[in-house]
Amino acid sequence: MRRVSATAARWRVPLPGGPVLDSPHARGARPGSMDLTLIQSLAVPGTTKIVLLSLDGLGGFPHPDTGRSELETARIPHLDGLARRGSCGLLRHVAPGVTPGSGPGHLGLFGYDPLRYLVGRGVLEALGIEFELRPGDVAARGNFCTVDAEGRITDRRAGRIPTSRCVELVERLREVRPAGVEVLVEPVKEHRFVLVLRGTGLSGRLSESDPQATGRPPVPVHALGPEAERAAALVNDFVGQARHLLRDAAPANMVLLRGFDQLPELPRFPTVFGLEAAGIAAYPMYRGLARLVGMDVLKTGATFAEEVATLEAHWDAYDFFFLHYKDTDKAGEDGDFPAKVAALERLDALVPPIEALRPDVFAVTGDHASPAVLRGHSWHPVPLVVTGAYAAADAVERFSERACAGGSLGTFPAHHLMPLLMANALRFTKFGA
Amino acid sequence: MRRVSATAARWRVPLPGGPVLDSPHARGARPGSMDLTLIQSLAVPGTTKIVLLSLDGLGGFPHPDTGRSELETARIPHLDGLARRGSCGLLRHVAPGVTPGSGPGHLGLFGYDPLRYLVGRGVLEALGIEFELRPGDVAARGNFCTVDAEGRITDRRAGRIPTSRCVELVERLREVRPAGVEVLVEPVKEHRFVLVLRGTGLSGRLSESDPQATGRPPVPVHALGPEAERAAALVNDFVGQARHLLRDAAPANMVLLRGFDQLPELPRFPTVFGLEAAGIAAYPMYRGLARLVGMDVLKTGATFAEEVATLEAHWDAYDFFFLHYKDTDKAGEDGDFPAKVAALERLDALVPPIEALRPDVFAVTGDHASPAVLRGHSWHPVPLVVTGAYAAADAVERFSERACAGGSLGTFPAHHLMPLLMANALRFTKFGA
Repeated sequence: MRRVSATAARWRVPLPGGPVLDSPHARGARPGSMDLTLIQSLAVPGTTKIVLLSLDGLGGFPHPDTGRSELETARIPHLDGLARRGSCGLLRHVAPGVTPGSGPGHLGLFGYDPLRYLVGRGVLEALGIEFELRPGDVAARGNFCTVDAEGRITDRRAGRIPTSRCVELVERLREVRPAGVEVLVEPVKEHRFVLVLRGTGLSGRLSESDPQATGRPPVPVHALGPEAERAAALVNDFVGQARHLLRDAAPANMVLLRGFDQLPELPRFPTVFGLEAAGIAAYPMYRGLARLVGMDVLKTGATFAEEVATLEAHWDAYDFFFLHYKDTDKAGEDGDFPAKVAALERLDALVPPIEALRPDVFAVTGDHASPAVLRGHSWHPVPLVVTGAYAAADAVERFSERACAGGSLGTFPAHHLMPLLMANALRFTKFGA
Repeated sequence: MRRVSATAARWRVPLPGGPVLDSPHARGARPGSMDLTLIQSLAVPGTTKIVLLSLDGLGGFPHPDTGRSELETARIPHLDGLARRGSCGLLRHVAPGVTPGSGPGHLGLFGYDPLRYLVGRGVLEALGIEFELRPGDVAARGNFCTVDAEGRITDRRAGRIPTSRCVELVERLREVRPAGVEVLVEPVKEHRFVLVLRGTGLSGRLSESDPQATGRPPVPVHALGPEAERAAALVNDFVGQARHLLRDAAPANMVLLRGFDQLPELPRFPTVFGLEAAGIAAYPMYRGLARLVGMDVLKTGATFAEEVATLEAHWDAYDFFFLHYKDTDKAGEDGDFPAKVAALERLDALVPPIEALRPDVFAVTGDHASPAVLRGHSWHPVPLVVTGAYAAADAVERFSERACAGGSLGTFPAHHLMPLLMANALRFTKFGA
């Protein structure tokens, strides 16, 4: 494992596109903002350890019968104990009223303003299957769909064909060979696949082929800038060949493409914060997001208990651990209130082994809310507790949406959490004399 | 005393570098932000008076033995009374998790976003000894240090030589005469001094000579832009001559220089807010900060009681008074919990004479936290109470960190306080029709 050297972790490592911070005059092009360049200039080396536990889709909503949310229903003595001992608040991801996807939700937790650091759906879809995107690759989210004899869309999801059929049809699409570029197609689930164009001089600045409506034919893709003309022609060529290859494959006899994008150039998390950082996640999407910001992604198992074992095994090797727990979100998306309560209780039982490692700073929160009553992500702010020697207990005695709303940390943007954790870990120097 | 004329105070006085506000299209380069240009456009003349009392390093942290912070431990009936009658909240200086220095902390209280209005350490150091910096002067923070026979630094602080020795050695440094520029050197305390270059065509965009480590020689200063090349050469010449002059003065046989900067061009506080403004502070740093933004600085004594007497003596002559109390910060920085409690109680006893003047708006807060348990500044948000006819009582009954977290003002950036005080003083007109 690499150790960040004291000097590299402190002052002099420039961010991509950002100046080195050695005088007030060099403080970059966005005066008045707390950006990653400023954060990097404040970060100092330390020996403290931070654990950030993201309970996916943590936030819930009161059940109409009981008036109590999933968190308020669950027996979660250890999470409540953290709330009693630590500082509580609510995290708002993206912006008020805005429901975050998993990508922006986690980028915010990692300290990246999700309105500033945009990651396209194609890239997220590729991360979700742990496809090793390379810089310059153009990725798109693909759907198999159904078209009629005149080529008009009759079903945008091809009757949600089984994943096994998706795998077969992706095999066919791999026969497409546009000139001078490599085409990679990967099945995802049901009617979904990932398309990646690999070659030089490509751009992801492309419109979508999905008209987001039935009764109309797919739309030819066009370049959103001159640098994308070649990619547009290649994509339209791919779509034409796909139509031919799928002509007898109804209901999956055509493809729709959207969310074209390339890997964003994100400042590296370990560089910005001066932390040796590891991501531990059972699900590929979250491993991909951790890798996207430059964390080491640790090999782990399929359960949260295995994630905790991985944490224990690598405890000495890192300063920062991102742990991800998926079950809360799954239950919320299924609209299964009791399942979400059970997921919270299962998680709660695994809090003590994390605490036993005695992290200097331990934060528990989520990437967005997924209330069972809404059967999906929502815009509601997400409970947060921060424990550590310098996070004072406030009046909050339970870990829930309503209790945390009265916490001393208030409601604040998710991308401000990392600076707060850095401060609590005594890893920030003073700003100004 | 000058009175701001009604017209001058209203619409047409341009800020340095800012446009006059007479059409929505002229509102400058930062759409969507509450900046000083907008504030100036809203300010209207009035006869109301505002007192802003800054208790330096006010915010504290629970003592491990009692679980109560300094504020929660102190008997402060008058501050508690203000909290009961007024609106409470917490101020966050600079940004979440960021520990402010005294300069940025006070600029925020004065309404200047400290991430936008940067003041270099050299300038703050000069303000701290009430050195009369002139526009164009380049100021740096200097340290005497120890170097070995090979010129490598062995002690960055020269064994913290006594101040009397610093004064003697500064005398020697005054012999340095680089061509075409005036060199001013002033002792500060122990190993610290201020260096000022005075002349035409200088720039403070310079790197630092302090490598921030021992075992290495001081680093030659270099220009961070072509306009600073002359200043870089002059500084390197100064350092070379200093080395020679100090060759027999071990442990203070060399100098380190950092934080080069020039006086920033700040919009004038009296112009922005349309207030006749006075600063009252026993400590030079805070007088300097008040002068930096264009307040009149009133002659006062060494104690807070004398500051209050100065306030009383000048009550009729100004619209706005900034009062500064230092003892809270000193005790916090010393890690002396009981001393901080005592400092709060001493201050509390002097609240009644301020209230007796019947300010229309009276705000009590601080420039940053200095918890005794942290022995220095910290990032924790700082209690605030605002009293006045239009600041309603909320549920807060005590002036403390945790109580104010539940106040009706919430947690907000320090540089939003001045607009709030202006509103409470009925000195802002409506925005839009």
